[in-house]
Amino acid sequence: MQDTIQIIPIKQIKEIRQGDNLSHIIAESLQQQQLSFENNDILVVTQKIVSKAEGRIVDLATVTPSSFAKHIAKNHKKDPRHIEIILQETKRIVRMDHGVIISETHHGFICANAGVDESNIGNNHTVSLLPQDPDASAEHIRSGLKKITGKQLAVVISDTWGRPWREGQVNFAIGSSGLEVLQDYRGEKDPYGYDLQVSLIAIADELAAAAELVMGKTKKIPAAIIRGYSYSPSSTKAKKLIRDAKTDLFR
Amino acid sequence: MQDTIQIIPIKQIKEIRQGDNLSHIIAESLQQQQLSFENNDILVVTQKIVSKAEGRIVDLATVTPSSFAKHIAKNHKKDPRHIEIILQETKRIVRMDHGVIISETHHGFICANAGVDESNIGNNHTVSLLPQDPDASAEHIRSGLKKITGKQLAVVISDTWGRPWREGQVNFAIGSSGLEVLQDYRGEKDPYGYDLQVSLIAIADELAAAAELVMGKTKKIPAAIIRGYSYSPSSTKAKKLIRDAKTDLFR
Repeated sequence: MQDTIQIIPIKQIKEIRQGDNLSHIIAESLQQQQLSFENNDILVVTQKIVSKAEGRIVDLATVTPSSFAKHIAKNHKKDPRHIEIILQETKRIVRMDHGVIISETHHGFICANAGVDESNIGNNHTVSLLPQDPDASAEHIRSGLKKITGKQLAVVISDTWGRPWREGQVNFAIGSSGLEVLQDYRGEKDPYGYDLQVSLIAIADELAAAAELVMGKTKKIPAAIIRGYSYSPSSTKAKKLIRDAKTDLFR
Repeated sequence: MQDTIQIIPIKQIKEIRQGDNLSHIIAESLQQQQLSFENNDILVVTQKIVSKAEGRIVDLATVTPSSFAKHIAKNHKKDPRHIEIILQETKRIVRMDHGVIISETHHGFICANAGVDESNIGNNHTVSLLPQDPDASAEHIRSGLKKITGKQLAVVISDTWGRPWREGQVNFAIGSSGLEVLQDYRGEKDPYGYDLQVSLIAIADELAAAAELVMGKTKKIPAAIIRGYSYSPSSTKAKKLIRDAKTDLFR
């Protein structure tokens, strides 16, 4: 039976630059807290530092906006070069209204501005893009930490998104390595002996949301450990959390 | 700065019946675990046991389905009396396709089947409805626990819902008492001195999702404590998490 879970913030992670070795930096920061990884720990890392390490930062001075981007920017009161990058990261515009662009990214994620973000970058003329393959990024961090620490971990990469019908944003899993992202209770009996009907829990999204509680936006804590959560090791990826267009009522 | 958070499952909660005093039962179960509440603990309780305690259970033998309910039931291969109850709990049908009904409930929640559920009730001819006023339910449990334990707590009532675009379900907050459900970082500076643009975090939803990690569906753990999370005490309610129709692009 599941026992108490801990959510441990990893503090004092330095500002990340392109080419930085995240596994190394995270292991070192944890050590400075007099802590170390244990087997089966889940490391949750925000997209922002992964994008920085992978150089997914664009200097807006290098961007030439299209006429469509200029038109949208005027309506949305935004920088046309920023809009240009959003459009480049977009496979399909899902909604465009109230000054908001909801995009389907090339990965298949549906989120505001195709995940292109201008906050928290050490220069106000740059924007950050989502990692090109967040599942591969998670796998890369996990194998790096395996080498450094010898521990068997799972890694989730999170981003902060809004939701239809609900106010506020929560963290979602955009990349994952080492754990089953969906826990399937279908076919099992509930405690009263009845078949559970619809019980497919998006574990990786819940882990991302839980980790946000120790991160906050202004606290400079871009990573956290979830310890004591009993999960199924698996090679499935966060991509599996993207709903198939055929069963999606809200395309 | 936020430190380590614990998520503590409350085990051995007995099967709840109409009229049961949840505050008393939860405090007792916790005591059996050799634990007790501490000031600022957040108690997360699943909707299911709140609905049971409040008698929000309908015996389908007492239900006469309308002709619309019969028609829908035939297409959806469901019990027409179950559909009848879903329609009674529905203010507006948001989508009806692929055998799924997405309703706006009288509370304003948008979720499958208006939150009417047939699993986990000790009799397969009953369905459970959402509490009539989940914020009031949360307040009731919180003040009950204040009397029993003398501790200042916050209470969140959770339900398990699917999401557009994503596979799987996560827990959401449908009721809340004692904490600010939305943490507003707008107007603050990020660690690099820039204005945070869109940073309104749905804390109560993240707490509900985090608590689900110790609950699971088959483990008979309908309540958990989140300890060590630094929140703003507030009289705001989970109702505040319902997005206004005017700014919702996915009605």
